[in-house]
Amino acid sequence: MEEGRNEEERLGGEEDDESKLESTEQVFEKVEIPSWKNQLTLRALFTSLVLSAVFNFIVCKLNLTTGVIPSLNVAAGLLGFAVIKSWTAVLHKAGLLKQPFTRQENTVIQTCVVASSGIAFSSGTASYMLGMSPTIAAKAEEGNTPNNVKTLSIGWMLAFLYVVSFVGLFSIVPLRKMMILKYKLTYPSGTATAYLINSFHTPKGAKLAKKQVAALFKCFSFSFLFGGFQWFFAADDGCGFSSFPTFGLKAYAQRFYFDFSSTYVGVGMLCPIMVNVSLLIGAIISWGIMWPIIETKEGIWYPPNLSSSSLKGIQGYRVFLSIATMLGDGLFNFFYMILVTGLSFMKRRRSEKNDPASLLPVDDAINKDKGTQLQDLDDQRRTHHFMKDSIPNAVAVGGYIALAALAIIAVPFIFPPLKWYHILVAYAIAPVLAFCNAYGCGLTDWSLASNYGKIAILIFSSWVGQDNGGVLAGLAACGVMMSIVSTASDLMQDFKTGYMTLASPLAMFFSQVAGTFIGCTLSPLVFWIFYKAYPLGDTHSAYPAPYAALYRAISLLGVEGFGSLPTNCLSLAIGFFVGAVAIDVLKEVLKKYETKYRAYRFIPNPMCMAIPFYLGGYFAIDMCVGSLILFVWRWKNKQQAKDFGPAVASGLICGESLSGIPAAILALAGIKAPICMKFLSAAANAKLENS
Amino acid sequence: MEEGRNEEERLGGEEDDESKLESTEQVFEKVEIPSWKNQLTLRALFTSLVLSAVFNFIVCKLNLTTGVIPSLNVAAGLLGFAVIKSWTAVLHKAGLLKQPFTRQENTVIQTCVVASSGIAFSSGTASYMLGMSPTIAAKAEEGNTPNNVKTLSIGWMLAFLYVVSFVGLFSIVPLRKMMILKYKLTYPSGTATAYLINSFHTPKGAKLAKKQVAALFKCFSFSFLFGGFQWFFAADDGCGFSSFPTFGLKAYAQRFYFDFSSTYVGVGMLCPIMVNVSLLIGAIISWGIMWPIIETKEGIWYPPNLSSSSLKGIQGYRVFLSIATMLGDGLFNFFYMILVTGLSFMKRRRSEKNDPASLLPVDDAINKDKGTQLQDLDDQRRTHHFMKDSIPNAVAVGGYIALAALAIIAVPFIFPPLKWYHILVAYAIAPVLAFCNAYGCGLTDWSLASNYGKIAILIFSSWVGQDNGGVLAGLAACGVMMSIVSTASDLMQDFKTGYMTLASPLAMFFSQVAGTFIGCTLSPLVFWIFYKAYPLGDTHSAYPAPYAALYRAISLLGVEGFGSLPTNCLSLAIGFFVGAVAIDVLKEVLKKYETKYRAYRFIPNPMCMAIPFYLGGYFAIDMCVGSLILFVWRWKNKQQAKDFGPAVASGLICGESLSGIPAAILALAGIKAPICMKFLSAAANAKLENS
Repeated sequence: MEEGRNEEERLGGEEDDESKLESTEQVFEKVEIPSWKNQLTLRALFTSLVLSAVFNFIVCKLNLTTGVIPSLNVAAGLLGFAVIKSWTAVLHKAGLLKQPFTRQENTVIQTCVVASSGIAFSSGTASYMLGMSPTIAAKAEEGNTPNNVKTLSIGWMLAFLYVVSFVGLFSIVPLRKMMILKYKLTYPSGTATAYLINSFHTPKGAKLAKKQVAALFKCFSFSFLFGGFQWFFAADDGCGFSSFPTFGLKAYAQRFYFDFSSTYVGVGMLCPIMVNVSLLIGAIISWGIMWPIIETKEGIWYPPNLSSSSLKGIQGYRVFLSIATMLGDGLFNFFYMILVTGLSFMKRRRSEKNDPASLLPVDDAINKDKGTQLQDLDDQRRTHHFMKDSIPNAVAVGGYIALAALAIIAVPFIFPPLKWYHILVAYAIAPVLAFCNAYGCGLTDWSLASNYGKIAILIFSSWVGQDNGGVLAGLAACGVMMSIVSTASDLMQDFKTGYMTLASPLAMFFSQVAGTFIGCTLSPLVFWIFYKAYPLGDTHSAYPAPYAALYRAISLLGVEGFGSLPTNCLSLAIGFFVGAVAIDVLKEVLKKYETKYRAYRFIPNPMCMAIPFYLGGYFAIDMCVGSLILFVWRWKNKQQAKDFGPAVASGLICGESLSGIPAAILALAGIKAPICMKFLSAAANAKLENS
Repeated sequence: MEEGRNEEERLGGEEDDESKLESTEQVFEKVEIPSWKNQLTLRALFTSLVLSAVFNFIVCKLNLTTGVIPSLNVAAGLLGFAVIKSWTAVLHKAGLLKQPFTRQENTVIQTCVVASSGIAFSSGTASYMLGMSPTIAAKAEEGNTPNNVKTLSIGWMLAFLYVVSFVGLFSIVPLRKMMILKYKLTYPSGTATAYLINSFHTPKGAKLAKKQVAALFKCFSFSFLFGGFQWFFAADDGCGFSSFPTFGLKAYAQRFYFDFSSTYVGVGMLCPIMVNVSLLIGAIISWGIMWPIIETKEGIWYPPNLSSSSLKGIQGYRVFLSIATMLGDGLFNFFYMILVTGLSFMKRRRSEKNDPASLLPVDDAINKDKGTQLQDLDDQRRTHHFMKDSIPNAVAVGGYIALAALAIIAVPFIFPPLKWYHILVAYAIAPVLAFCNAYGCGLTDWSLASNYGKIAILIFSSWVGQDNGGVLAGLAACGVMMSIVSTASDLMQDFKTGYMTLASPLAMFFSQVAGTFIGCTLSPLVFWIFYKAYPLGDTHSAYPAPYAALYRAISLLGVEGFGSLPTNCLSLAIGFFVGAVAIDVLKEVLKKYETKYRAYRFIPNPMCMAIPFYLGGYFAIDMCVGSLILFVWRWKNKQQAKDFGPAVASGLICGESLSGIPAAILALAGIKAPICMKFLSAAANAKLENS
């Protein structure tokens, strides 16, 4: 019974969020919501196709250069609106407009574009697929045998993607109710997009909404212009605001700096304070304490002078300790949730109560516990529409099993080293990892799909073994896994958007199916253009495709076994796994038995703590700046912060995301920024001046 | 009659300023104002002495390194407060406090410290005096003859300063009434200091004042911390935020950039918008159009490959066109003012009216014209106290003549090439230049004393001639002139502070006398420490003293005659002089005859336009940013902008000025900033990366 309340309080920031939303649905009260079929219009699908092509191009390009992809949800929502709005404005003037443009239709476009551009990333054309090619294989000393390489060809790439990409859609159907209705996770990008879409479609006369739209656009413009301004100073790697050693060069070397990313400041404003603090604690533990200590063991624990990306050195500790902690937290939450759900089921059976409106037992428990008086108008309407046109869990499970069976049969034909039982295992553990990723992404906006892909590489390459083509098998298994895990986080963001814009889940599901189909088709085709035109993977070229070599290296590590991990890495990883579980257990115990001070609120979240292990603290600092802004704002004017905080945050996120598009276009055109803002130590500068 | 009104309207920002102040004096209404003798306490003089020593050290150091000295008024006010306040707090606790610490006493300390640290600059120990030394003389090809050099010695330096430094004090006594009461000039630093001092001494219970103090301290802290933050990134010349090519590298090369100086953003907020726009127009005309055109004539109009500081090249055009324009505007205003005052006198005589309260006829005219109903409480009280304890103009003129006579007799003994008639001429033209400088400084906060000093060098060195020791004579005349001109602007800032804090002018005058005495004594002594310890003037040392060589170069140019100026420079200078006068005439004509649209408000100010000719547009951009902030603020909330604008501006100015003190201390200790934030073109960076 306490679960529901506690879960909500756990994410402290939510309450304000909810009461802010109250006004939104009152504003939209008189706007008709089209049926799910009318949300899926032809014009929406056409717009999605065009935008998907644009986004696929951008994502492919980014994959091949740095591999860092920003969240494109907001951009998709905004561009979808712009295209359809101008189109409908023309039709309206000509008197040909049959159906007005609604926010639900906008959400459907956005979800389709996100689904297709998500495939551009998770299809791994620039990571695991390119890692299979003979060019990349020739770079490493080992594993360059015929059964461990596969020449790229457009045919098998398309076939593989069609086979593995649709499974994920079914895995998220049951998850979405847990994540959005039960846990009420934030999904910052999804929430931001929803605010954006709601703002666009706000009917006239809503004063607060108008002011919110104004605030959103002010912050959007600022963030967009500032993003553009930053571009001019980032001529090369290590240049520009994103390399600003805000706390000095030593802190920068340990990845502690404020990188002026308005996106993450906005994300920090949307995330609960404890999430941001957890991230910061994780960064301090890892980059502030652990790694510097381990680095003193260079030459003892691991060989000296390794390349910085080698998993046999310090990078190995970072990656594996991060994965271990995330797995610990993710698995605990997964099993704890099953336990609670099971108990709740049994309880319900006993009391022989049956509430047909509630599909999810725990959800029902919340409703009863909190009472309807706490469920405000927005929540009611949203939950209502979110449960309407729903796909039954049985259909979801059935679809998942059917598509998994298809993959189990088909994939071994494409990759002979991968046997049917390998793929069966992959599909058995995938939902667990999908849960972990969707949960973490809901908290922090970070999708860790590539991390889970790396686990898959390790497991399957070591299982199959080098002689049986384990390197290739690992990379292929990564594709199977990434597809599901990535879909889980990306589309959950969309469902959050859909929840907040009252879009029909059924319309969204079909839109995602369409988007997945578009993505599976476009992604290899766009990649093929680059592949034919440039020498991909050459370190000194414009397209170094860093992840191709990295993924293959992980696979090589897998076939050589965990024994090849650096000294103490495995025992440390086990320690971190246990530590993560212990923190979660402590939190649950405190929640149950210490209700006076509610100390559990101050227990950091292990999933959040683990992310900076690998990436460093810079984005945690951005997010804490966001928290700080919101904190000061609340302290000065609580109501204003409540009313405008989410709009400001959304504006910040949208603006910078969109300013990435002209930057990407300029990069595609081969135009570099004119200035490099560089940070040198005083000694290095003096040397440079004298030379 | 229209003069008064028009003059006030001319400085558009003033009106708001005044109505904001209304509350200040109401708040202070019940606080007793001590007599002028009680404003001049022993503790105040002692504190002034200590702070003067600190400031002399800082200024001397800055003179020897870059020659750029920030305005120290605010720092002096704040530190004076801090010292006395802690001192009186201790006494108060011990029950020994006899006299409470008042804002008038605070102003007296501040004016004394400013007077003494002003001498540290205008004494020219690092510029014209060092330029006389054999070390510097040996660097140039010409002029290194015995009668053109003078070995530095503490004896004659002290004697020279005592003789020339006190004259200036008398020249500003009549000026202060014109500048502050008639023209109501802004004097941004002085105004900021006054706000600061008033804030400190605000009696309890004044709600708005408290809020203003809070706003001031918030901005002060921000500006102070941001100034400190900037320090870390400025390891060397061309590093840090002050070299930020905000509008690209090409614009930066033409000195168009925003240099993140919160001081000048604050100054821009205190200055009327038209002043800032004039500065920007001047920057665009000169650095955007004129200099690039003249630079294409390199090798035709002037010899190629000159050093960038050579007055025979492009730098010559900058310096001389700037001086010509300033002289044009300054002289026009001077003679126009005399004309108007004369006419007003005659008018008064005719109407046989006699108002004993008004010492200044034009001032009286304002009072009659505007009527007392427009003179609010603040203005009344301030004018009352500003006129009380006043030194009669006759005493001022008498003092000036007496001290000038002393100098005319004494200086030729120290510098034989300078004859008595040279010094007589210098003292005859000095008040004109002092007027120009005090006027310009009141508008923009820039003291151009060194520019006027340069004119003096040119005039007297060419008059005396090289064979008769013209180089030495020019540099010595520069000292005579700079002393007066610099005093005029620095102490007028103080009088503005005194006006706004109701300090007695008589107390301030004696405080300035004391400060001048302290400055004349300390300045050569502090310089002597550096002179004995380091090889001053060596380009590669820590103390290059750039101005020593530059001033000597100007003097050499003088003895070689204007004929040695680059081609067309003299004719262009004459053109700019005439242009400046023409703009002023146009403005006065419009003011008289075009009253419908009041178009004269949009005529830029030539004095302001001329400053960026020499320095570039960066500070004009800072100031326009200040205007922009205020403009947006007014547009959003007029009352709030009115109430808090000056406090915010003062906070910005004070904070950065004070953060210069720890920076200077670190520089004195030889500690360089750890990081250089450098801006390279993409090509230069690529080259650096590959090397």
